[in-house]
Amino acid sequence: MTALKLAVAGLGTVGTGLVKLLESESDLLALRAGRRLEIVDVAARERGRDRGVTLDRYRWHDDAVAMARGTQADVVVELIGGSDGPAKAVCEAALGAGRHVVTANKALLAHHGAPLARTAEEAGVALLYEAAVAGGIPAIKALREGFAGNEIQRVMGILNGTCNYMLSDMRRTGRDFATVLKEAQDLGYAEADPGFDIDGIDAAHKLAILSSLAFGVGVDLAAVHVEGIRNVSALDIAFAEELGYRIKLLGIARRSETGLEQRVHPCMVPVEAPIAHVDGVLNAVVVEGSHVGRTVLEGPGAGAGPTASAVAADLIDIARGGRAPAFGVPTTAFEPLQAASMDAHLGAYYIRLMVVDRPGVLASVAASLGAHGISIESLLQRGRAPEERVPVVIVTHETRERDLKAALAEIARHEAVAEPPLSIRIEIL
Amino acid sequence: MTALKLAVAGLGTVGTGLVKLLESESDLLALRAGRRLEIVDVAARERGRDRGVTLDRYRWHDDAVAMARGTQADVVVELIGGSDGPAKAVCEAALGAGRHVVTANKALLAHHGAPLARTAEEAGVALLYEAAVAGGIPAIKALREGFAGNEIQRVMGILNGTCNYMLSDMRRTGRDFATVLKEAQDLGYAEADPGFDIDGIDAAHKLAILSSLAFGVGVDLAAVHVEGIRNVSALDIAFAEELGYRIKLLGIARRSETGLEQRVHPCMVPVEAPIAHVDGVLNAVVVEGSHVGRTVLEGPGAGAGPTASAVAADLIDIARGGRAPAFGVPTTAFEPLQAASMDAHLGAYYIRLMVVDRPGVLASVAASLGAHGISIESLLQRGRAPEERVPVVIVTHETRERDLKAALAEIARHEAVAEPPLSIRIEIL
Repeated sequence: MTALKLAVAGLGTVGTGLVKLLESESDLLALRAGRRLEIVDVAARERGRDRGVTLDRYRWHDDAVAMARGTQADVVVELIGGSDGPAKAVCEAALGAGRHVVTANKALLAHHGAPLARTAEEAGVALLYEAAVAGGIPAIKALREGFAGNEIQRVMGILNGTCNYMLSDMRRTGRDFATVLKEAQDLGYAEADPGFDIDGIDAAHKLAILSSLAFGVGVDLAAVHVEGIRNVSALDIAFAEELGYRIKLLGIARRSETGLEQRVHPCMVPVEAPIAHVDGVLNAVVVEGSHVGRTVLEGPGAGAGPTASAVAADLIDIARGGRAPAFGVPTTAFEPLQAASMDAHLGAYYIRLMVVDRPGVLASVAASLGAHGISIESLLQRGRAPEERVPVVIVTHETRERDLKAALAEIARHEAVAEPPLSIRIEIL
Repeated sequence: MTALKLAVAGLGTVGTGLVKLLESESDLLALRAGRRLEIVDVAARERGRDRGVTLDRYRWHDDAVAMARGTQADVVVELIGGSDGPAKAVCEAALGAGRHVVTANKALLAHHGAPLARTAEEAGVALLYEAAVAGGIPAIKALREGFAGNEIQRVMGILNGTCNYMLSDMRRTGRDFATVLKEAQDLGYAEADPGFDIDGIDAAHKLAILSSLAFGVGVDLAAVHVEGIRNVSALDIAFAEELGYRIKLLGIARRSETGLEQRVHPCMVPVEAPIAHVDGVLNAVVVEGSHVGRTVLEGPGAGAGPTASAVAADLIDIARGGRAPAFGVPTTAFEPLQAASMDAHLGAYYIRLMVVDRPGVLASVAASLGAHGISIESLLQRGRAPEERVPVVIVTHETRERDLKAALAEIARHEAVAEPPLSIRIEIL
């Protein structure tokens, strides 16, 4: 069989990692793919840069879009990154020219996944993106194929390694957010401008992609409710531990009675849940299906090796010839997305208050909760310090988010409540 | 596109579960498969049995082999079970007639995987078996496709739910093996004749299949070293806990310098390892690849729903038309299997002795270990009871199994050693 010819756009860490993998495993890949995988074209901005890999054998292009438009390769691999600009132009040019596309670009798919999938369908070519979510974990393949016999009930995951590293480190060391962020930046685990990770945006991109696959809806990033981890304090992590929970930044999508919930926010997860033990930069994806029940996939969520591994798997799939729609079902069959409102979210909550320690305060807080129909599962007050600030922690039974918000607004106005109340959703697994 | 026509052989729990899934999810499956999945033939021994599902629409066959030989279906689904007899005959007849085969039968593949794969290759049809290992977890797909860009270094897993349930229960309750086995039998988690599970045979079947896929070798059940869990005592489970380990029955395959190790036996795994927290009837598969690093997949390893989910995924793959060789590479490319000897196994060990508590015994035990070049990482003696039996626990540094065996044989002959020494391999994750 003839070789599968590849054009690689972008030669940063991931692109270079892919070139290395394709060279070092070439015989194994040929056996597993049924044909050789051969790079013919490469494109990047700086030709002169030392990438630790020889590129002489491949046709060089300074202009990735021009390469995508004119290449004779079967597949264009987009590893430039970014939701728009050249990455988008490369994918559109390649699909328009009838080339398969493999990309690791979560931002691109989160913003333009549905139209790109439609273009691929119309051209009769594949659009694959295993590397875009959870790195080397075959989570996309599992949802698109492995669980294809199931109606998916919930999909969720630890989708951002930086946040998971920071939360794991805060728990392990007891240090506060700012200290851990500074160290993560020094170690290269967090960017100088960390907002993309710690404000939950990266996780939201990935969740929007998982949701589309799981529920047969178009990717809709705007429908994802996003909160990051900036407000998680060492105090809350310690209380979580005491209550039998761990705090994780989760992306969660599930059908509720008001529509499709898609949300990224810090969660309390029971310490017995497997996902509670996924620490450091690892990622994990939990899938609950109508027949399979609950499965958990975990592993490295980023890095050149895992990402190149995922891209290689997509290339082998293309070489073997099976074709599934990019998001599991044809774009023409997407269900209209009815986004559930967070106000209607039903769940239990952890609430942490800083109150002035004086008689009657707790009774008043409890009365506010009761007035909004919220029942208390447990209440902790640690330390006695009359007329000083002490933390009070409340775990509620299941309640509507709008009722919780109303109660907390009322509690915030109480003269003995010294800071705006903090709440963290509890996710039952 | 025309429907994919199915012939289902075997209507026990799994077969009936598949019929239900194909009926209840038929529209979803059609979307995801790109065509409808339609049962045309079914075969089982007792037509009259109430299976809680209507079978009138399908052509009934008392003889599954005759059905497989004569069916016009595209795919024959073998859910009869057993390593030989009708299950084997059905698969051979179907492949011989140019039909794709999907099976959940691990015993069949463990005994006859390579020749069946060769027959499928020669006929140009698929042989898929996601349900044969780890139930609903897409572990076969992950190894065959998701990690196809990697040289696999080690694959291992909790592959038998009965053993994992029993070991989890022993740890949780502190009860002994016999009590827990009795209860597992009463609850239906263990068979009346439990040897197939608790002696490690079922796990060995699954490991032999995983090894073939991971390492590109023919399935070779005879090369799997197998030990069950009958010798694991409540005492050892308690010591494991104290030392920071959990005891799990693992199936492990890895390349060592003497060849391919394939082994099923109780292991001490560090409590920090994700696999240590996979409790109850759940299964887990850990894969270590040259680029992806380590990933863990966990979920329900058995049951009608998860098994039917896995079979449905295979059917959808066939409907979509991609064709990978059954064991990842063509049978003609299998590497010759050089089985590593267990004597050459290199690892750390937990040793538990029952010794008569008197001066000099520990010195003598330590001397025997030292004489065989085995160095001690830690040694515990709990309780003082002069001239009575007390347990002594030793954890070794890395050593060769043949040296350990020789040392234990010598220690067993010591007059103060009251029982044959017990050893459990420590698996570093």
